[in-house]
Amino acid sequence: MNTYQRIVLASRPQAEVKPEHFRLETVAVPELADGQLLIRNHYLSLDPYMRGRMNDARSYAAPQALGETMIGGTVGEVVASRHPSFAPGEFVAAMGGWAEMAVSDGAGLRKLDASGVPLSAHLGVVGMPGMTAWYGLNRILDLQPGQTVCVSAASGAVGSAVGQLAKLRGCRAIGIAGGQEKCDHVVRELGFDACVDYKAGNLRADLKAAAPDGIDGIFENVGGEVFDAALARTNPFARVALCGMIAGYDGADIPMRNVRLLLANRITLRGFIVTEHLDCWPEGLAELGALVAAGRLKYRETVSQGLASAPEAFMGLLKGRNFGKQLVKLV
Amino acid sequence: MNTYQRIVLASRPQAEVKPEHFRLETVAVPELADGQLLIRNHYLSLDPYMRGRMNDARSYAAPQALGETMIGGTVGEVVASRHPSFAPGEFVAAMGGWAEMAVSDGAGLRKLDASGVPLSAHLGVVGMPGMTAWYGLNRILDLQPGQTVCVSAASGAVGSAVGQLAKLRGCRAIGIAGGQEKCDHVVRELGFDACVDYKAGNLRADLKAAAPDGIDGIFENVGGEVFDAALARTNPFARVALCGMIAGYDGADIPMRNVRLLLANRITLRGFIVTEHLDCWPEGLAELGALVAAGRLKYRETVSQGLASAPEAFMGLLKGRNFGKQLVKLV
Repeated sequence: MNTYQRIVLASRPQAEVKPEHFRLETVAVPELADGQLLIRNHYLSLDPYMRGRMNDARSYAAPQALGETMIGGTVGEVVASRHPSFAPGEFVAAMGGWAEMAVSDGAGLRKLDASGVPLSAHLGVVGMPGMTAWYGLNRILDLQPGQTVCVSAASGAVGSAVGQLAKLRGCRAIGIAGGQEKCDHVVRELGFDACVDYKAGNLRADLKAAAPDGIDGIFENVGGEVFDAALARTNPFARVALCGMIAGYDGADIPMRNVRLLLANRITLRGFIVTEHLDCWPEGLAELGALVAAGRLKYRETVSQGLASAPEAFMGLLKGRNFGKQLVKLV
Repeated sequence: MNTYQRIVLASRPQAEVKPEHFRLETVAVPELADGQLLIRNHYLSLDPYMRGRMNDARSYAAPQALGETMIGGTVGEVVASRHPSFAPGEFVAAMGGWAEMAVSDGAGLRKLDASGVPLSAHLGVVGMPGMTAWYGLNRILDLQPGQTVCVSAASGAVGSAVGQLAKLRGCRAIGIAGGQEKCDHVVRELGFDACVDYKAGNLRADLKAAAPDGIDGIFENVGGEVFDAALARTNPFARVALCGMIAGYDGADIPMRNVRLLLANRITLRGFIVTEHLDCWPEGLAELGALVAAGRLKYRETVSQGLASAPEAFMGLLKGRNFGKQLVKLV
């Protein structure tokens, strides 16, 4: 095991992401310096934000460098350590990237208690996506019992947690998802009050039927027509947690048409990045972990096998082909 | 003086407002009942929100009824009273409508001290437009000294106050206005740091030059391309006070194209209606009145003569032909 595999950004997509934008490489495992540790990554998380990083555009984060390991969250096991705080056999969440192994100096690592919840869940409902749902719901939407929240990409890693956490607060949860199978899952397995299939062609009418009392909070993961349709059903003083614009990640601008409703309904909208609110993570992760361990917060995963499958899985994620949290199993 | 003139809504515009949507009527002055008073309106305020009321659409306020006096803010003199709190000779601000006289039961009237500032200013910088600027700047944007605010319709009643109040807070104020004459006024007379002429055809480049350190707060009165251009220059965590969408009042939807920037720059946007925050008015009006009386807050008016001139003046307002606060002098 003197080498491992990684995937680097070979070129930047102008629009749709294609296999040629990635390159699989075999590289040598480096010698550890003092203060470093070596992690064998077990799971890689694939997330929509990665599409934005592939652009060479002004954004909240620096673009992914060409020829470098693709950025990504991972969970894995420490296999060697010259760091005083980490020992072989410990499990950690890290930004290990699209790679079988990662060297770290300990910065940003989060030690995992592998006993309570499955290891992979620390990349999903008890990790960044779960915290995204928790923060947007608790710190931005802040709904009262009986109010209605609408969440797009409702069967996804973030959306599924948003609706379930809202139900635990006594709210009415309406999902929007693509296809009957996902919608059935959202209602029957996750307990949402309703879920609208945006692919069925009656988005606005179906949303009106699903939210007869209007919408008090939008947790927006998609943008475009789906967002406009939810805005059209808002009640006065509705709030919007703007989390993602997946529909726009392929380069095309997706305008918002219902701008006047932001004024007419005196809406408060806030875009947010959950990694800028790390002070909330201990409280949120403790709550999420306890809910998962108690079986009160469910999640679903789509797992592709082996690092080489990551580009195909990522392209599927951008097209909504995954069902729940998209992971790559590396070991 | 047994009759007076008023203007009613004759029909609803489908797009552009035209003279035939209004009708001038002569009506009898009614007998006052107990608890009522009669006001002779001296000035009528014309404001962009009136265009929205002319539609029969779901909005924050009920639509203007057909055949009824057009809604509008007025200042005037009490000329007869059977109300215990109001005596002839007193001056009041009221929602007296597009009419030479108004009967009131006292609800919503605001007594004016006619000595401190000119009567007409109570419809502008020391009235609703001034309070709109004050509330959006102090309660939504809440900028720190040295930060940059960008305000559209900068020579208008609201925008001109926004920039001057921002300068008094130690902020940098950038205006957007239509035409070189308005821009010159905004910089030379009102003291903004810069003003971009959106009609000059280089909006984005000119705004970049005017705001080299980016924009921390947008006070949006217009929407459409002007709003998108300001969004394109926002710094992280910028705030938007969404006050008006005048560009869309003629019926056409004006999409927002820079939706992704709301997320990328973690922007907080809030639509607001200042009349829902009456608790702030005493503090705000006292501050605005004192600044006007001290000559530290300037304003400009466009005054058309006589009630019959109101429709033409209103159509001009919607096209930006006014310069500062648009009023109709009735006496």
